[in-house]
Order: sequence, then C-alpha cells, then structure tokens
Amino acid sequence: MTDFFKGLKPVKFKGPKTDNPLAYRHYDKDELVLGKRMEDHIRPAIAYWHSFAWEGGDPFGGRTFDRPWFGPTMDHARIKADVAFELFELLDAPFFCFHDRDIAPEGDSLAESNKNVRQIAEVFAKKMEKSRTKLLWGTANLFSNRRYMSGAATNPDPDVFAYAAAQVKNVLEITHELGGSNYVLWGGREGYETLLNTRVGQEADQMARFIHLVIEHAEKIGFKGQILIEPKPQEPSKHQYDFDVATVFGFLAKYGLEKQVKCNIEVGHAFLANHSFEHELAVAASHGLLGSVDANRNDLQSGWDTDQFPNDPREMTLAFYHILKNGGLGKGGFNFDAKVRRQSLDPADLLHGHIGGLDTLARGLKAAAALIEDGTFDKTVDARYVGWEGKEAQAMLKGKRSLEDIAKRVEKEAINPEPRSGQQEYLENLVNRFV
Amino acid sequence: MTDFFKGLKPVKFKGPKTDNPLAYRHYDKDELVLGKRMEDHIRPAIAYWHSFAWEGGDPFGGRTFDRPWFGPTMDHARIKADVAFELFELLDAPFFCFHDRDIAPEGDSLAESNKNVRQIAEVFAKKMEKSRTKLLWGTANLFSNRRYMSGAATNPDPDVFAYAAAQVKNVLEITHELGGSNYVLWGGREGYETLLNTRVGQEADQMARFIHLVIEHAEKIGFKGQILIEPKPQEPSKHQYDFDVATVFGFLAKYGLEKQVKCNIEVGHAFLANHSFEHELAVAASHGLLGSVDANRNDLQSGWDTDQFPNDPREMTLAFYHILKNGGLGKGGFNFDAKVRRQSLDPADLLHGHIGGLDTLARGLKAAAALIEDGTFDKTVDARYVGWEGKEAQAMLKGKRSLEDIAKRVEKEAINPEPRSGQQEYLENLVNRFV
Amino acid sequence: MTDFFKGLKPVKFKGPKTDNPLAYRHYDKDELVLGKRMEDHIRPAIAYWHSFAWEGGDPFGGRTFDRPWFGPTMDHARIKADVAFELFELLDAPFFCFHDRDIAPEGDSLAESNKNVRQIAEVFAKKMEKSRTKLLWGTANLFSNRRYMSGAATNPDPDVFAYAAAQVKNVLEITHELGGSNYVLWGGREGYETLLNTRVGQEADQMARFIHLVIEHAEKIGFKGQILIEPKPQEPSKHQYDFDVATVFGFLAKYGLEKQVKCNIEVGHAFLANHSFEHELAVAASHGLLGSVDANRNDLQSGWDTDQFPNDPREMTLAFYHILKNGGLGKGGFNFDAKVRRQSLDPADLLHGHIGGLDTLARGLKAAAALIEDGTFDKTVDARYVGWEGKEAQAMLKGKRSLEDIAKRVEKEAINPEPRSGQQEYLENLVNRFV
Amino acid sequence: MTDFFKGLKPVKFKGPKTDNPLAYRHYDKDELVLGKRMEDHIRPAIAYWHSFAWEGGDPFGGRTFDRPWFGPTMDHARIKADVAFELFELLDAPFFCFHDRDIAPEGDSLAESNKNVRQIAEVFAKKMEKSRTKLLWGTANLFSNRRYMSGAATNPDPDVFAYAAAQVKNVLEITHELGGSNYVLWGGREGYETLLNTRVGQEADQMARFIHLVIEHAEKIGFKGQILIEPKPQEPSKHQYDFDVATVFGFLAKYGLEKQVKCNIEVGHAFLANHSFEHELAVAASHGLLGSVDANRNDLQSGWDTDQFPNDPREMTLAFYHILKNGGLGKGGFNFDAKVRRQSLDPADLLHGHIGGLDTLARGLKAAAALIEDGTFDKTVDARYVGWEGKEAQAMLKGKRSLEDIAKRVEKEAINPEPRSGQQEYLENLVNRFV
Repeated sequence: MTDFFKGLKPVKFKGPKTDNPLAYRHYDKDELVLGKRMEDHIRPAIAYWHSFAWEGGDPFGGRTFDRPWFGPTMDHARIKADVAFELFELLDAPFFCFHDRDIAPEGDSLAESNKNVRQIAEVFAKKMEKSRTKLLWGTANLFSNRRYMSGAATNPDPDVFAYAAAQVKNVLEITHELGGSNYVLWGGREGYETLLNTRVGQEADQMARFIHLVIEHAEKIGFKGQILIEPKPQEPSKHQYDFDVATVFGFLAKYGLEKQVKCNIEVGHAFLANHSFEHELAVAASHGLLGSVDANRNDLQSGWDTDQFPNDPREMTLAFYHILKNGGLGKGGFNFDAKVRRQSLDPADLLHGHIGGLDTLARGLKAAAALIEDGTFDKTVDARYVGWEGKEAQAMLKGKRSLEDIAKRVEKEAINPEPRSGQQEYLENLVNRFV
Repeated sequence: MTDFFKGLKPVKFKGPKTDNPLAYRHYDKDELVLGKRMEDHIRPAIAYWHSFAWEGGDPFGGRTFDRPWFGPTMDHARIKADVAFELFELLDAPFFCFHDRDIAPEGDSLAESNKNVRQIAEVFAKKMEKSRTKLLWGTANLFSNRRYMSGAATNPDPDVFAYAAAQVKNVLEITHELGGSNYVLWGGREGYETLLNTRVGQEADQMARFIHLVIEHAEKIGFKGQILIEPKPQEPSKHQYDFDVATVFGFLAKYGLEKQVKCNIEVGHAFLANHSFEHELAVAASHGLLGSVDANRNDLQSGWDTDQFPNDPREMTLAFYHILKNGGLGKGGFNFDAKVRRQSLDPADLLHGHIGGLDTLARGLKAAAALIEDGTFDKTVDARYVGWEGKEAQAMLKGKRSLEDIAKRVEKEAINPEPRSGQQEYLENLVNRFV
Repeated sequence: MTDFFKGLKPVKFKGPKTDNPLAYRHYDKDELVLGKRMEDHIRPAIAYWHSFAWEGGDPFGGRTFDRPWFGPTMDHARIKADVAFELFELLDAPFFCFHDRDIAPEGDSLAESNKNVRQIAEVFAKKMEKSRTKLLWGTANLFSNRRYMSGAATNPDPDVFAYAAAQVKNVLEITHELGGSNYVLWGGREGYETLLNTRVGQEADQMARFIHLVIEHAEKIGFKGQILIEPKPQEPSKHQYDFDVATVFGFLAKYGLEKQVKCNIEVGHAFLANHSFEHELAVAASHGLLGSVDANRNDLQSGWDTDQFPNDPREMTLAFYHILKNGGLGKGGFNFDAKVRRQSLDPADLLHGHIGGLDTLARGLKAAAALIEDGTFDKTVDARYVGWEGKEAQAMLKGKRSLEDIAKRVEKEAINPEPRSGQQEYLENLVNRFV
Repeated sequence: MTDFFKGLKPVKFKGPKTDNPLAYRHYDKDELVLGKRMEDHIRPAIAYWHSFAWEGGDPFGGRTFDRPWFGPTMDHARIKADVAFELFELLDAPFFCFHDRDIAPEGDSLAESNKNVRQIAEVFAKKMEKSRTKLLWGTANLFSNRRYMSGAATNPDPDVFAYAAAQVKNVLEITHELGGSNYVLWGGREGYETLLNTRVGQEADQMARFIHLVIEHAEKIGFKGQILIEPKPQEPSKHQYDFDVATVFGFLAKYGLEKQVKCNIEVGHAFLANHSFEHELAVAASHGLLGSVDANRNDLQSGWDTDQFPNDPREMTLAFYHILKNGGLGKGGFNFDAKVRRQSLDPADLLHGHIGGLDTLARGLKAAAALIEDGTFDKTVDARYVGWEGKEAQAMLKGKRSLEDIAKRVEKEAINPEPRSGQQEYLENLVNRFV
C-alpha cells in the first residue's frame, strides 16, 4: 500500500443531495436501469496512461505533476502499478485499460521491452486476483518512440511495420492472458504530416495487411474479444487515416474487414472531426461498428485533443439513447481516456475527474432510459417515416420499381408532396425534459 | 444577340506581360502540355446557375444584381439562355453545366416543369449546333423547392423520393440528348438538420436505391457518361451524408456502387471538410473515384460555402499533380461552380472571375507538368518507399507472413529501425520552384 | 384576432412534472430568485423578425413557411402585427424587439419607408396600451437592401452613410416613443468582403462618427435607454468589424465611446468568434460593457449563424453566474434572436421554440443563483487569488515597486513559488451539482 | 567550429533557374526594391529556440532529433551557441532572436539561472564581434517551467508575478547590452485554462502593471528598442488574453499603453484567430501597432500552432503590400519563428526550411513592390472612396453635421444611392499578375 492517496477514502454513492465532493451523486452501480445494473450498462474503465503516465506536459511546457513513480526503472513501474490499483479500488472501478509503453519502460531491445511489459502484466495478474477490476482493453503504443515518427503499419520503411507487428503480438497476447474484452488499434501516427511525401493508397494497403495479421493472430490464440479501431481526424498527424467512423467503415469495407473490426468512438475525436458524438454513434450503429467508447470530451473552443472528463449530461443522454437502441455496448465500455488538467496537481484531482465523469454518464444513462421508457420520442420519429411502410414505398425501396415506373406513377397520381414540420424544437424540448 | 455584354470583346490569350485585364495571361488553350492541349487537360466549364441564376442574395440580404432575365416566365429563361451562350463565346468556353430549375421556371405541375426544362434544352440544342461549347454535365435541383426541405432521396416521405426520381429522369434524359459527358448527383439536402428526427441507416438505404435507379436508367437509355456524387460536409444541412470522398467511398462500397459512380470533387467542399483539395483528389484516385472537379475555392476564414473563383496557382499545382498522375480527368473537367461576389455587379465582373480562374488553372497545370517532367520530386518520393520493394517486405504485404513469422524475424535480425528525414521542407521548396 | 394560432392556448407554468409540451416546466415568472422575480431577471423578449418576417429560406432554398402575412403591402404588415401580439400574449412575453424593415415594407423613397414604419409603430402603440408587452429594443435594418451591400456607416459612398443615418434617426425616435429600453446597432454589413478594396482605418472613423451621431441625437430627444453594439465575427461579411467584445471595447476606447455604449452579446456569435458565451459576458463585465443578451445559440458543428433557441441549461448557468455577479442586466434583457428551423412549419413550433428557450433560461438562472447562494464556488475562487491581498502584492500592483525593487526582493527572499492545483475538475463538478 | 553542418556550404543567391536546392533562388539581399536593399526590407532573423532548442517532440511523442548539444549542462549550451552562429553564417542571416531558457539551462535558483543566461550572452557578445548577425529581439520564457503553469504576470500567486519580473529584468538588460532592436512579450500562459477559476478583470490589471514595469525599466536603462506584444488566440491556454491585434489594442488603450507598445504579428497566430495575416497587419497599421513579424505560417487544416516556414508567395505579397504602405517595419523584422517538421531530422533540413522561407518572403516583397509601382491597384481603391473627399462628406465625417442635418439633406436631395461594383475578382487578378 503506497501513501499516494493518503487521507482519501473509497468513493461511495451518496445521492444527489450530498455536498461531499468525493462521493458519487448519480453513479449508483447497482441501480437497475431498464432492468440492468448501471455498472453493466456503462462498464467504466480507468485509463492507465492518462492517470498515471502523463506528466502534465504540453507543447509549451514540461512536467507539472510530481509523482513518486516518475522514472525510468522497473521499480518505478511497480510503484505505478500499485498506485493504479489503489485508484481502481478507491473509485470501485470495474475496468481499466493500458498501453504497453505506459505500464513498463522501454528496454534496449524489443525483446527487453516486451519482457518489461510482460513482467508488469504479471504484477497486474496477481493484483487482479484480489481485485474486482478487469481489463476492458489493451493496446500498443506505436507512436511515442521516434521510430514511429512516420507511422507504424503505414511507415514507408517495412522494418518499422515489422517492429510494430512484433510489439502488437506481445500486447495482444498479454491482453488475452489478462482476460481483456477488447484489443484497440489507435491510429497513432497512421496518417501523414505532408501529402507531398506520401502515397495514401499504398499506406492503406499496409494498414489493412497489418489489421489482418492482428485478426489472424487473435483467432489463433483464441482471443474472443473485439478488435477495435479508434477514429480520429488529425493530431499528431496533419491527417489521420481513421478520420471518423464513416471513413473507417469505407476502409474496412474495401479490405473485407467490416465484419471483424468495430470502432472505439471518442467523444472528443468526434468533435474534432466536426461531428457530434451522437452522430458518430448513430453512424457506427448503422454500419454495425459500435464497439466501445472513449468518454473524454474536447474543449469546445480548442482545436487540439484536450481529453477532458465528460461533464455534459445532455450530450451523454443523446449518446446513451443510441447505445441503448443498439442493444448496449456488449463487450465494449466507457473508457475514461481523460486526463486531469496539467494544473490539477493534487491526488484528489484524479478522484474529482473520475467522479464527475461517472456522474455525468450516470445522468445520461438514466435520462436516455427515461426518454425511451416514456416512448413519446420514438413514436414521434416513427411517425415521421411511416410513409415508407406503404406498399408502393416498399416496392420502390426494394428495387421493384424502375425510374420509369416511378415517373409514370408521379404523373398519373399527380403526386405533389406537401412538406410536414420536422418538429426539431419540440423534440429538443422533449429530450430536455429527461435530462 | 442581347446587349448585356455590350462593349466587351472576346477574351484572347495575350501572354503574361499584357496589362489588359480582359485577356488570358496564362490560359492558352492550344498550348501543348505533356503532349496534350491545355484545353483538353482542363476541360473548363461555365456553371449556368451561379453565372446566370444567382441573384446576389445571401442570408442577410436579397438580390443585388440587376439582370434583364430575372423573372418567372419562359421568356426570361430564353433571354438567360441567349446571354449564357454569349458568355460561353466571349470566354471561348469548351463546356458548360446546368441544373434544371436554373434554366427554366418551375411550372404548376412536375409535368409542366419538365416541359419547361425540355423547351430550354431545345433552345440549348439549337445553340450548340452553332457553338463549340459542349455540355460537361447536367443535374437536377433537388433542394431549392420547399418540397425538398427534408431531403429528396432521403426524405421521410416516399412521395418526395418519387417526385425527385421523376425529376431526375427528365434531366438525365436531357443531359443524354445534349451529349453531356457526366451526370452529377449533388446531395443537396441529403443529410439532416437534427439527428433527433433522423434515421441515418434507413436514409442511406433510400439514397442507395435512388442511385441504383439512376444508373439503371442511364444504362437503359444508353448514356455513356459518368455518374458523379459531389461530396460536401455540411450546408444546407447540418450534416450532409456525402461528407467527403472517404465517406462517399464507404457508402458506395456498402451498396455495391463503387465501380459505377465516381466523385465530383470541389475545392471549397474539401476545405469545409477540413481537408486540402489535393487530399481529396489523392484519396479519390486511390479508390478509383476521381471523376471531375468543381474548381471553386472557399474563403479561408469563412465557415460557409463561398464558391469563389480559384486564385491560388500553388493549390492548383498540387491538384494537377494528382490529376496528371491519375491519367487526367477523362470524361470529367473543371466546372467553375463559382459565383462572382454579390458586390460584383458589372457584366465585366463575370469575365474577370472566369479569366482569373482559368489563368490560375493554367498556371497550376503548367507547374505540375514541369514538376513531373523534372522528375526529382517523384524520385524523392519513390526513394522513400523503396524498402517495400524488398522480398521480405513484399511477402509481408502480400499476406505470406504471419504475425508470429514477423515477430520471430524482428527478434532474430534484431531489427531496430532508424528513422529517416521526411524532407518536407525540401519537397515544399521543390514544388515552389515550379509554381 | 386572427386565427393563425387557432386551437393553441396561452402557455402556463405547470411545473417540471407536466407532460404538456405547451406548458412552461421551469419558467415561472413570479418565482423569486435571489429576491427578485424570475421575469425581472430574465426580461425575455420576442424577436419580431425571426418569428414573423423570416420566411424559412437559406442559401440553397427559398420560403418554406406559409404565412398569411407574407406579402408586400401595408395590409400584410398589419396582419403580421396582429399575429405578433397574439404570440406575445400566448407566451405572456414581457418584451419584444423589432427591426424597421421587418415591421413594414420598404417604400419608393426613404420618406415613404419611414412613414410605413411609423404607421406600424402606431399600430404597436395602440396594441401596447392593452398589452403588458413592452419594447426591449428597436433597431434599423441596414443590411438587407442592396444599397447597403458594401456597408452602411462604413460604406465607401458617403451617400449611403447619410441614407443610413436618416433611417436610424427614424427608428431611434420611434423606439423612444414606444418606450424602448435600448437601441441596438448591429454591424450588419459593417466589415469587408475583401481586404483588397477596403481601408479599415477610414471605415472605423466612419463607424465612430456614425455612433457619435446616434448618441447625440438620443440625448437630444431625451432617450434614456442604452445604446448597444452587437459583436459578431463574420457573416454576412467575411470580416465584421465588431468581431467580439474585446474588439468592440478597443474600438469604443479609441473613439472615446466606452462610457456611452454597451454590448448586446449573442450566444451564437460568441461561439462563431471561438469564445464561450460566458467568456464574452465576463470580458464585457470587466470592461463595463455588459448591456443585453441575444439568447440564441449556434449549432456546434455549423460554421454559419444558425440562430437556434437555447437548449443547454449548463451554458445558461455559467452565463447567469456572470450576469448575477455583475448585478444583473439592468435595462437589458434576453432577446430570443432565434428562429425555428425552416422545417418547423407549424404555428405550434413557434411556441415550442420559445417555451424550450425560456425553460432553459429559467433552469440556468435558478442553478446560478443556487451556486452563488451555496457560496463554495466563490470562496474557492477567492482563495486562489488571496495572495494578491498581501501588502507587497498590492504595492506591486499599485505601481509602488519598480522592476528593480521586485527583482531585489525575489533574490533576497529567494522566492521560488510552488504551483497549486487549479482545481478545474472540482469546480466543474461543483457547477454541475446545481444544474 | 563544430562539424554539425559538415559538408554544407554557405547558401548563396543563384537565381530562379538554379536547381541547387541549397541556394537562394529569389532572396538576393543586395537587390534594390523600391530603392532599398532587400535585406533591409525583410530584416530576417533566425529563432534560436525552434532551430536549436526544440527536440522534435509533440503531445504524442518525444524527441526525434539527435543533436550533440541536447543536454542539461552549460557545456551543451556552449556547443549550441557555436552551432547557432554557424547556421547564421551559412544562411548569411542579418539577425537572430532568443528566449533566455533556450540559450542556457535553468539553475537551482533564479540567480543561478540568470547567471547562466548572462554567461551565454557573453558568448554571444564575443561571437557577434566577428559576425554580421545582430540581435532582432530577446525575450523571456515565462511558460515552460511548471511555476508558470497558471500564468506569469497574470498568475493568481503574486510571487510568480515577482519571479517573472525578476526574470524579465535580466533578459531585458541582456537584450539591451547585445544591441537588440526589440524586446518581445509573448503571452505564453497569460490566459486561462478554465474561466471557472479565473478573474479576467484582475488578471488584465496584473498584466498591464507588468508591462508598465518593463517599459519603465527599459527607459531607465536606456533601451531604445520597441516593446512588442505577440497576439495569439489560444494555446497553450484555452484562451490567451492577447487574442489578436484588435484585442491587444483594446488592452493597451485601456491602460494607456497604446503609444509605448507595438505588436509582433505572427502569420500562424492570425490564422488561428480566424483572420488572414494581411488582416492583422492592416488592423495593426490602422492603430499604429505594426511593430514586427513572426513569419511562420500554420497548416491550413490543423487547429494547433504548427509553426511552419512560410511557403506561400501570394500571402506574403499581400503582407508586404501593407508593410510597404505602412513605411516598412522600422526596427522590426521577419523572425522565422518556424521549426522544421519533427521528421526533418537532417542538418540540411534546417537550411531547406530557412531557404524556402526567405525565398517566399523575397517573392512576396518583389511582387508587392511591383503592385505598388504599377499603381493601378491603389488607384482603383482610391477611386472607391473618392466620394468621401467631397465637402458634405467631410463635414459629416468631421462632426459638423447632426443626425438631423443629415436626415434633412437626404430627404431634400432625395438621396437614393446606387451601389457600385466592389470589383473583387478584378483586384484579385490584378494582385496575381505580380505574384
């Protein structure tokens, strides 16, 4: 037991009226929502990297945090693991997620690096025996080291592709051994800094091959989890190939991967791609790609990735509406890929961030469930499309009418459609009734 | 012969030293560039709607232009056609493009509207007998009338779908009869104002069916032109389904349309989707979707569609580089989907816009050709990827190695790739040498 | 009494549990908040132009609404006025706002136009005798007519300046006669389409002179209301001179106007200027410029002015926090410069928009009041700055120490400040507790 | 003499036809432009920090560059200084700029840090005796160290203010001793991460006081250079107080500083503030604030500060137009606050970046001069405003007419202004003629 969180007690649900800032006010894990425990809906996970590995730096300044585990040795990594599981316990978190490089230091060779990762994974395994916290997903950091500066799978140098493949093999196997529910491929530097030196077609072929390799290996080792791609439009690259859900779908479809890979959708990345979060969820659901979620939002005025804890219940209401209509997240969950601000120096700030985030998700979930249970909303939308249930409409839609057939009917029946109100304000008010 | 352009003479190529503002300084249609006439590379087209139908309005104010053909009758439409062909001749334009509603007024019924369009098409046909100006493409306006306020193909009301289909049938046939090289489907209002009242999956199904109908009819009537979709991220809708080239590719692939439809890529829409124009061209080329181009740029600080004439030779150099590497635009061309500003009231302003645009395209084409002929640029990029030509690299890429094979080789050969300069500044300077 | 709103009843407060969509759920005008009636805090106003004059058009399509008062005659204007006051009554609105051109049609001369405006003003005056609805502000439309295409006060043609001055004189006097609390100068087209043809310095001089003229005339006629400038970064112009509050302050300070003019701050314009709404309020308060508010928000993904009804209670909580700390809005209020969407065709949609907006404001006001009454928030912020109350700190701030003095003290006392947590997540959670 | 640039020769002007990538193609320092040497117009400066101190990191990855001087000791700092002056010589640079922390390592106390800076300044002084490279400006790094995480002058802790003051005193004096032409105050972290914990009014007071201290000390020590503020809208903070030129003007005017401080305007910051670069220059000129320039552009699709070398001659043509019309930059110059991309690992890349940048500036300068010498452009703009030279117009502008006078004249003379073309396309073409 470290003394990092000294004086801080396990966070409990105290209800909306408490003025204890270190209690959950809405997140009551066992509360039943639409017949399922709240925790089973949300499946929240703590992100190892942002909570423990990020040092508070930004492009204009270095480390602001002062943590006992900052350092290059395996001993530091072990302290970090201790503190991580202490936070999981304090927050009563059912899941966590990790990147390989953030749990263990890079060695002099890939073999040594992989060994370091494996050693910390063994530490995790032991801790997980006594903890209720499970692994939501693992992933490999294919972007921090300078060898990846021009991409990993999409690097112009095939040796980098190979190196990345070997690194992923290690983390995928560890993720499997730790019982992870998903394995995430974040594009990292799969994109370009300048189109001038880039062959986008070839790099897409490389990326597809890489993903095929991962899927084949996952099958071989018996990994039953989901393989997830995380869309992001830009940063660190000028252009990231996994721009948004629609782009990822096109890529997957081109290479026959659309049944084997889903998306890990991040609130903040949706915003940076000039979409609402609910848009990305709805598009993913329409393509069967709704896999998991990164809960972190972006600042509404910043043009870079700010990775902030969610704090907008209304946004999460709309999100949960789409998630619930899609039958829930399945093996996915809500990863808090969020970091406290670089000025949030205190250990308690790590709690505040997660508490506020979880309460926001809980409010969103409950509001979405109430919206669905009320039923008015769905009925209103159904009524808007009811015309398509008609016989002629279905015939058109199913390909049983030609352009000529349709044109003749329009003339014969003198069809002259009268527009009907889209009822946007009514529907917005209706949603707000439940937030 | 109207007197609208009274006093203005046909625009001739006078070379870069002329100070005649109404002469081409770079656009010399017969100049050979990489062995092909400049005009055959660019295939420039004048957009009927922006040059003749737009009245100078914006969301905060109405008509500023004062044109003799503004009015609701077929007589007005005939004057408009006269002036249009006068402009084509003044500019020596090889192509034009049109929307149905902009060439002829809407009637009391679709039948009457279609008849109006057909009558003006007959006027066009006669004029085209004596003119060298051909039809690059036609399209149907499925967005201005209130019946389309909630979309055309994606409307919740199947009658609107049917009405739109009947409208497209008419314009597609006319486009065919006039010898058009392409038929364009611009999304118009295919998108949503609010996700709250929208089923994105169903609307995608509707849109796909609509396009299938168009393709089938095109085949039936023997239309050999390209069918084109024009990507745009938003406006008039909050979200347009044809967001960008990558999104359109995904849509086409999902519905088995990716071999039958290409993209009409607009400079300004690329920018509004947060892409460079050359990015959209490169992505389209990689998917086999590079069909045609709308040459109009967006203002760099405006968040709405400004449709301005191109005036950046460097941007067009990068564009032509990708077009030339793709073997040219084929049946496509450069449509000036650009409007003079609403303060540009004078007939001469219509000439200035097109002259500046054409000169910009000509500079871009010549610079790109010089860049390619010089060869240094391509050699530099080839060298960056040369590693992928190696035997092991090809084996990886072709699926002949497993993740395990690769990981073993990385360990055995102690692969530890050293990064190499991406040479961005060098390449930027190299491009600028030819602009 | 027209029959436009036939079947719709006056909107009443029914409390948060009602499922009547045409009732107020949070806006209870007489509820006391911090000792003042809710209505007196908010001072909500209905915007004549968006609710009655806007026809549902956008850059890609025309009129969607079908209103009996759409037409060019004074009779149409009178029906419009009738319906307007019916809406005021249905909503129980304490205020309205108007533009001259939207209440009465333009005549053949300015004299006739002014007379038309005056005649409708007389209609208003009579109606106001029997109505509780007062005039929050009036303004002149100096942007719709083509004569203003290059600006009004900042036009390169001094005759346009003069014409605009004469138009403003009329509306200012009418605003005064109708007991208006404010007169608003919205920049309209005071800005530029291209810097290439624009002298920004001279145009600023013109604008300053214009405002001086208005102030002098207001004094002369005894108008005691506030004169307000409405910041907006762009649209319709590429650049609007009144970009944001900070820019307006600089302009006012340069011309000695900063004591005589305040700002009318719009939620949506703040967003388009890449600011949060609360930022603009806080900056205005710091300069003494917090005059009034336009409540309409922008769509978060759209780059143009969408003028939507507010529906985010959290945003309004932060806004009211700054308003309450500033002592309230005084003569200002919350104008709903918002329009129902162009697909919201039904008369009831006008009610839904305003009801949702008012409920959102009410929730924000109550949450902000609770936040202030709780006191924790303010104490936390006060504590952050407490060091500046120290003697040495005050001496530095008041100019009693030189750079040398300070440097000496730093060395002597070996000052080496240790950073303290900014507590952002804690504060965000604290705010959310009250939303 | 280090061997860092081994094999690279001094960069010479070889003219536009050279295919030597390490030669100037347009920058010919002694070429007379409008009667003044090109170098004296541009006054280019190399930025110490980006070229020598930046390690190639970004938020998603660490150091990519491999430089012999990366390290924490004074010996490293001395090697860095050697290489810096070698680059100045290779590029024949007339100026350089520096931040204190980037030339010398931070010590255990401010005294030691200041001493370190002074020691390297002495190294500089010696080198400058033998070099033609002068100091364009110096500045203090008040943002990298964690003590400044909440701002320097605007910190809630007055000790940080004091510490920053003591740090600036040292650099200001050194700048003076080294003959610097300017001293720059970059906002760094003067702004906020969240408005929730921030008093914007008080922080503005603090900032104003800080600048007064600097000005008073500059006067005291006899520093005749310009004091410059560098506008930037955001990053690292969510909001930077020096948002843009207009905001800075308002701040300066409020605190009586507008005659003593000018702006250092950065191309990329203008873009991030949603302005064109020429806009910021024109606004600065109109306020008498045009002091100096940071030449680096932003990527057009990236929402964060990319600090790239300029490569758009047209943008620089418009910039130089405003600079030349303003009488040049005076004591200012063009600082290349630009960094080669993190993938540009080679020493030669440092040359390519600066060569491309200087050639771009040279093309812009020559084009702007030609545009001015031709005279058509200025005449066209003058003609647009000629009406304001009339007697009545001047009377209005000079405050000799009341609103009433003007309204009477409008009626009497039946003024009904007819709009005139803004000629935007014509002017754009005219500019392009010279680029």
